[in-house]
Amino acid sequence: MGKTNAISHRKANKTIRLVDASGNPVTGKEVILELTNHHFLFGSGIFDAIDVANQNSSADKHAFLEEKLDRFLDIFNFGTLPFYWGRFEPEQGKPQTNKLMAAAKWLKDRNVTVKGHPLCWHTVTAPWLLEMSNDEILKAQFNRIEREVSDFKGVIDMWDVINEVVIMPIFDKYDNGITRISKDLGRIGIVKEMFAKTREFHPDATLLLNDFNTSINYEILIDGCLHAGVSIDAIGIQSHQHQGYWGREKLEEVLERFSQFGLPIHFTENTLTSGHIMPPEIEDLNDYQISDWPSTPEFEERQANEVEEMYTILFEHPLVEAISNWSFSDDGAWLGAPAGFIRKDNSPKPSYQALKKLIKEDWHTMVTGTTDTNGIISFEGILGDYDLKYDDKKVNFTLTKDAKTEQIMI
Amino acid sequence: MGKTNAISHRKANKTIRLVDASGNPVTGKEVILELTNHHFLFGSGIFDAIDVANQNSSADKHAFLEEKLDRFLDIFNFGTLPFYWGRFEPEQGKPQTNKLMAAAKWLKDRNVTVKGHPLCWHTVTAPWLLEMSNDEILKAQFNRIEREVSDFKGVIDMWDVINEVVIMPIFDKYDNGITRISKDLGRIGIVKEMFAKTREFHPDATLLLNDFNTSINYEILIDGCLHAGVSIDAIGIQSHQHQGYWGREKLEEVLERFSQFGLPIHFTENTLTSGHIMPPEIEDLNDYQISDWPSTPEFEERQANEVEEMYTILFEHPLVEAISNWSFSDDGAWLGAPAGFIRKDNSPKPSYQALKKLIKEDWHTMVTGTTDTNGIISFEGILGDYDLKYDDKKVNFTLTKDAKTEQIMI
Repeated sequence: MGKTNAISHRKANKTIRLVDASGNPVTGKEVILELTNHHFLFGSGIFDAIDVANQNSSADKHAFLEEKLDRFLDIFNFGTLPFYWGRFEPEQGKPQTNKLMAAAKWLKDRNVTVKGHPLCWHTVTAPWLLEMSNDEILKAQFNRIEREVSDFKGVIDMWDVINEVVIMPIFDKYDNGITRISKDLGRIGIVKEMFAKTREFHPDATLLLNDFNTSINYEILIDGCLHAGVSIDAIGIQSHQHQGYWGREKLEEVLERFSQFGLPIHFTENTLTSGHIMPPEIEDLNDYQISDWPSTPEFEERQANEVEEMYTILFEHPLVEAISNWSFSDDGAWLGAPAGFIRKDNSPKPSYQALKKLIKEDWHTMVTGTTDTNGIISFEGILGDYDLKYDDKKVNFTLTKDAKTEQIMI
Repeated sequence: MGKTNAISHRKANKTIRLVDASGNPVTGKEVILELTNHHFLFGSGIFDAIDVANQNSSADKHAFLEEKLDRFLDIFNFGTLPFYWGRFEPEQGKPQTNKLMAAAKWLKDRNVTVKGHPLCWHTVTAPWLLEMSNDEILKAQFNRIEREVSDFKGVIDMWDVINEVVIMPIFDKYDNGITRISKDLGRIGIVKEMFAKTREFHPDATLLLNDFNTSINYEILIDGCLHAGVSIDAIGIQSHQHQGYWGREKLEEVLERFSQFGLPIHFTENTLTSGHIMPPEIEDLNDYQISDWPSTPEFEERQANEVEEMYTILFEHPLVEAISNWSFSDDGAWLGAPAGFIRKDNSPKPSYQALKKLIKEDWHTMVTGTTDTNGIISFEGILGDYDLKYDDKKVNFTLTKDAKTEQIMI
């Protein structure tokens, strides 16, 4: 189970009093207690769920995607679905709500926590905003938030509310409606407005601010948002490392700086490739366009080592609550990078095996023990959902940090 | 008077009805209306006022410093005095209040607006803070603000409240009490506390946030402070250009970015040298230590051209209200740089003449006119204090932006 002390914040002790249907203690029974789902969110972008859930593909393609999703479900409990406005509602008034709903429910039915990404962003936003006045754009953005958050409530209860605000008002690659209103509102102003609107229609949702900028800029932005009363539930940090693994030192430095707020931290968009490193002179990753970016055995080993180290550092940090790899598979990966845990043919890379070992073995809990004469058994385990089994009986419970003695009927 | 349209925001029209002591209109008189003091603040650091006002020097030195100050007074209406805590109160409980008060009054008596710099800063702060707990440091800092702001009220009504906050919590050159508390409070938190305390003891003061960082960091910090309700009266921008003149493009870009808040902007610490350029690889200007940094005729011409262009750009910008050169003279200049408008022997450089021409000629107002049969005369002029003269009579008035018809008794 790894270095015990380093992940003590991921564990709790629990005492269970096992009783039968009549309320009599189940005494002297050897029971198995096994983690079935981590409280920690391990996941990735899983946009293919849309095609699978909507049966959009040919039989062959469908089978291929189902295999891909099986690999996903085998290790992950968390998935991000795309709500890019320009794709979600390419024609004003015709949102892809049904398609996304099918995908979100498909994932939820398989015990996957789903996050929507993003509600407000200057990139891939609706092109028809350009025809509007700034007042109209803001109103449309509010309406969009109200609609998505309300429609998906109960299925998607976690949102990247607003994305890449540091660059938003100075984004100059092309004109777009969101940059326009961010100039009017200012950075903190637009964050405040978007969070308030999202919160209004889903008070209990987990709401994230998300950025690729991990400099002082983002620190001060968060500081400003918190002083402005914005209710941020988690700080989202992108970590696309196409240009090389940050390494332990930078990772710990970033964690230290963003821990100052005492808020949960989500690594929202992680990339570690199993291919060659993108040249350092590329400033906007989108500018790197190559026809072939192969995954190689040598670099697959490197990726596995980096994944193992990075996930371990993050899991050992008390404030990190989620890690999303951006691409689950090389098939369809952003920028054509070999950024997945599985190859284009769905075969697992060493990184997949390394991660599976961490999640399903090193950080797993399965203990056996015998209930005492009062039906009591105590154990320590990794936080999450559990099965308790003996003979052919099974019951489930949840292990939380504030675990107390719980009476469980079996 | 330069390009009329470019500085229309610096001017106003005014109608004066001139009456004698009995209230009768003074008719058909040719009068002279002359600007005696700009509303705009042109100034520099003028720490030598301390030694002069306190008669601290030998007769020779005193005469030399008096000559220096005469040159200062000949063009400037604004001076910054040092309140570095570590020098102002090197021994706890023994502040240099009397010395600074003498200097501030000496300047005020000569019609110079005085600014105190700074109330809170991690550099040159009191070393004895290191013996305290963080709670004690914060309390001492509050007491320090209360004391200085109260003691100097009416003599110094403008303060750099807090200096260089972007770097403050990550300043790692040496341990100091202010960095310690800035880590506790966060950047916006410490700004908020220091401004609130200063405002408490001088509600009408002009309070500045000041930084050398002109990147997005500082923009977001200001945005955050304003959202946190901090009452910033002016944004202070340092512009030490030892490594070369920013040039028009960068200057206008900085002005545009910091104009988004609609607040007055002060260029608080300007440097343009008349010597060689500091190498670009120097990151902290303080690290550049050389024995001799000569002022040369060639570079003095360059400095004069840069000063002329920069001051013109700033004077033409509607939100800029003050420009302080950091060093008035090469004598005693920071880093030994030839950063003054006068040389070590008090002789004026071309930059001094260029600036004098701008302030006293190009942006000066002196008009003559004749009062009509109702004693009325109208004129347009640069904002500031004026003398109205005819025959041997003289009266003064102020030309403000919201100038209305004013009856003046002479």
